[in-house]
Amino acid sequence: MSWLPSLKTETPEAGFELALTLSRMAVKYTQPDENVRKDLREQYASNADSLTMASQVVATNFQTIAAANQYWAEAE
Amino acid sequence: MSWLPSLKTETPEAGFELALTLSRMAVKYTQPDENVRKDLREQYASNADSLTMASQVVATNFQTIAAANQYWAEAE
Amino acid sequence: MSWLPSLKTETPEAGFELALTLSRMAVKYTQPDENVRKDLREQYASNADSLTMASQVVATNFQTIAAANQYWAEAE
Amino acid sequence: MSWLPSLKTETPEAGFELALTLSRMAVKYTQPDENVRKDLREQYASNADSLTMASQVVATNFQTIAAANQYWAEAE
Amino acid sequence: MSWLPSLKTETPEAGFELALTLSRMAVKYTQPDENVRKDLREQYASNADSLTMASQVVATNFQTIAAANQYWAEAE
Amino acid sequence: MSWLPSLKTETPEAGFELALTLSRMAVKYTQPDENVRKDLREQYASNADSLTMASQVVATNFQTIAAANQYWAEAE
Repeated sequence: MSWLPSLKTETPEAGFELALTLSRMAVKYTQPDENVRKDLREQYASNADSLTMASQVVATNFQTIAAANQYWAEAE
Repeated sequence: MSWLPSLKTETPEAGFELALTLSRMAVKYTQPDENVRKDLREQYASNADSLTMASQVVATNFQTIAAANQYWAEAE
Repeated sequence: MSWLPSLKTETPEAGFELALTLSRMAVKYTQPDENVRKDLREQYASNADSLTMASQVVATNFQTIAAANQYWAEAE
Repeated sequence: MSWLPSLKTETPEAGFELALTLSRMAVKYTQPDENVRKDLREQYASNADSLTMASQVVATNFQTIAAANQYWAEAE
Repeated sequence: MSWLPSLKTETPEAGFELALTLSRMAVKYTQPDENVRKDLREQYASNADSLTMASQVVATNFQTIAAANQYWAEAE
Repeated sequence: MSWLPSLKTETPEAGFELALTLSRMAVKYTQPDENVRKDLREQYASNADSLTMASQVVATNFQTIAAANQYWAEAE
């Protein structure tokens, strides 16, 4: 089973969470060691600029997911 | 109730505020501890580059929201 | 009266100035204290990288404004 | 044989991996020495902000690949 | 006379130069003092990362200009 | 002869190389001295974050080039 079978989601909120997943998977491909990633998460989770940079990645991925879902226009 | 039921807003200004919400939610998912976030906000709110980086995230999210609302073309 | 009644502008130049306004408003929402913002502006206005980062935000917002105005195609 | 014969992929996951490839190829063009790249990878793979910056590049390339595949709309 | 009468240019190269102008104008609006800007330019023109950051702004503005010109499709 | 006669390329790989050219030309316009650029290239080519930042510019320019070529859809 693929970790990314589709870019479609039922709701905008689920789409935002998929954007978070995409952001984390990019890190995982580069740093496959889960223990190292856990240490790093503790570092950047208490640094304001690190969190902002992570939010930028999420925002970029959310653009992609939102476009793929035509902005959930028909969900309303 | 979802925190993001729709990307649609009545006005451009409400869309800008939704972009701010998206930016903050990405941080919240990564750093769920409200007290830590409050401390960090005080730090970055008095640092010019930190504020600019945060504005970049808002600008990116506003692109998504504005496109989802077809730039509020019919609101005028 | 909204500070952002519309994304439409008469001219490309006015659109660029609206992009500057959007960039500043994102900062204002995060740091509402005008005196703090004034101090910060003096700092980053004399730092090359800070100015470049601010230009990046403006460029991103200008993408949104230009698309909203269909690139002012009929203005020519 | 080109390293980039097409932007099309069978699945979203394969598209994400192509985005990773594009990100690495940009580095390879600038720093062709494989040994230097290997050393650098060890450095940035254990630095949270470096990994986030790399994720930003992947997110940007994934936007391109996803658009090229029309978001794999028919794959579902 | 506006410094930005139109986003249209005759050629891709002229469009790239307009993207450079947009990037510089964003700085000029924030730092209107020409002497300060001249000093800063000397600094960042000899710093690799500063130049890369400036190139990022140009790339973003070139996206806008290229879209406004429909990628100069008919110019070929 | 223009250094950028067209955004069209025969293949995706050639498009990627044009994105690299655009990235370098932005630097060249800001720092026209070839010797200074050569020194800077040696610096950033051995710094992981500098290379990642450069890849970000390439990714942004590749978005433009890929869109201009309609993602080379008919090349397959």
